[in-house]
Amino acid sequence: MSGTNGESERARAEPRRRSQFRLFRTLTTRWSDNDIYGHMNNVVHYALFDSAVNGWLIETGLLDLHGGEEIGLVVETGCRYHGELAFPDPVTAGIGISRLGRSSVRYEIALFRGEDDVAAAEGFFVHVNVDRRTRRPVAIGPARRAKFEEIIL
Amino acid sequence: MSGTNGESERARAEPRRRSQFRLFRTLTTRWSDNDIYGHMNNVVHYALFDSAVNGWLIETGLLDLHGGEEIGLVVETGCRYHGELAFPDPVTAGIGISRLGRSSVRYEIALFRGEDDVAAAEGFFVHVNVDRRTRRPVAIGPARRAKFEEIIL
Amino acid sequence: MSGTNGESERARAEPRRRSQFRLFRTLTTRWSDNDIYGHMNNVVHYALFDSAVNGWLIETGLLDLHGGEEIGLVVETGCRYHGELAFPDPVTAGIGISRLGRSSVRYEIALFRGEDDVAAAEGFFVHVNVDRRTRRPVAIGPARRAKFEEIIL
Amino acid sequence: MSGTNGESERARAEPRRRSQFRLFRTLTTRWSDNDIYGHMNNVVHYALFDSAVNGWLIETGLLDLHGGEEIGLVVETGCRYHGELAFPDPVTAGIGISRLGRSSVRYEIALFRGEDDVAAAEGFFVHVNVDRRTRRPVAIGPARRAKFEEIIL
Repeated sequence: MSGTNGESERARAEPRRRSQFRLFRTLTTRWSDNDIYGHMNNVVHYALFDSAVNGWLIETGLLDLHGGEEIGLVVETGCRYHGELAFPDPVTAGIGISRLGRSSVRYEIALFRGEDDVAAAEGFFVHVNVDRRTRRPVAIGPARRAKFEEIIL
Repeated sequence: MSGTNGESERARAEPRRRSQFRLFRTLTTRWSDNDIYGHMNNVVHYALFDSAVNGWLIETGLLDLHGGEEIGLVVETGCRYHGELAFPDPVTAGIGISRLGRSSVRYEIALFRGEDDVAAAEGFFVHVNVDRRTRRPVAIGPARRAKFEEIIL
Repeated sequence: MSGTNGESERARAEPRRRSQFRLFRTLTTRWSDNDIYGHMNNVVHYALFDSAVNGWLIETGLLDLHGGEEIGLVVETGCRYHGELAFPDPVTAGIGISRLGRSSVRYEIALFRGEDDVAAAEGFFVHVNVDRRTRRPVAIGPARRAKFEEIIL
Repeated sequence: MSGTNGESERARAEPRRRSQFRLFRTLTTRWSDNDIYGHMNNVVHYALFDSAVNGWLIETGLLDLHGGEEIGLVVETGCRYHGELAFPDPVTAGIGISRLGRSSVRYEIALFRGEDDVAAAEGFFVHVNVDRRTRRPVAIGPARRAKFEEIIL
């Protein structure tokens, strides 16, 4: 099995636990997140992934919403749902990087319900670092790379 | 000017301040809340109003998501925008009740950015208390009424 | 009763009908629009208002998403809910302008379910025409004003 | 390479074309779908996948929102982004099934911008057919299976 095939390897693995992450962010759920079955709609998980990672990128100075020259373009995302989440659950996201390429980053995010130790859902998304105007890939510079390396899983 | 006309009276008033509320809830913004202009889309404010009020209703036992006989049907909502909010701002909602009728409740919600004292936006929504199945109005009983009275503005 | 008080005047009026509008747009609902009660969450109506009006603005050349010098800043919104909408209902929005000021526009939008003649919900929002950079109000020029006048109610 | 590994096989493949699908649904984008970069946020694609598939399920009688005994529980989703979509683009979804198990269905959805022949994005989601109350898997009966077989890719 190819080592590039992280998503499917994960599909056979156990859900991740909190101890596998060093970086966490706390998120709140919303009334409108719950669907007709009374649980968080599967789409919302991705809004939480985005918010967890981009919140960290902004705080660490890796993303400047208004003036940045480089942005992260999303080229692939995925999620596996192990258990249910629902408003008004508080959610903690564990965030890590599983692959750091020349111009791309693959983030892994696990969502933990309340104080749970086992992830209710876990997903990934792949950012390609691009020039904001041309949308062409740009190599990740050494200063930014050093920050990414701090959260490699 | 009629006393039933709270929304327009408010339109002439100053933005509310934290000191006008006794009940608060902390909310997080999301990456997808920001629109093309880099600020929170005007629709998201309503998702926060809903979440603030329903979160309180669930915690106080006034709303049972799965088994309740009575639900709050939204018949009118409104919002005035005084200043900009944006991800990743933390937001605090101040919540109060400005009118408590036989079977209806008018909530007032102000959204405060970070540690700001003056509201960035304030809105209202009117719940009619209805039977979950028939959707007909039902008088608010004395136990529930007592809880609502605790947050009258 | 003051003429500035459109929202509350409407509150006493009958729901609008299709014949009161000349401009319509067709919208689709989404699975995630339905909340735990099986009907469209009250927040979604505002996403439809926004989409109906901005879709028209873009098509008529009144709004240029990427290069425009002037944008519409939302300062107030509101909605009254007369009946239920739900995915997968198709929705038609009727759009009109009830007040055209020096630098502001008040839009009225009614949402019709399927082929219904009576609005399931109706709302408004007030755009102030501002400079994209300074966010200061700018008078609406004669060419744009002429287009707005075509849909005055 | 294992045959169960559809997602990564697809990652090496060309974007899908309209001719690969027999079933299509038309969807509208929303103003709030566009993010700060002026394009549809990566989360919205999943809301469109959900709406395309569930819209078909409801129309064909395979899903009864209010009275059904069996529902589709989402256990895994994924998306690859080939090109940009943005409000006010109209979007057409091509829908097919790539795997039909005893109690599970894997849907493949491609999103086409306007009249484009090549997909701007394509994703999948896996539904496990469960009992609405117990949330335990239930075998897909022959009548339903026959309908699913009509859209196998």
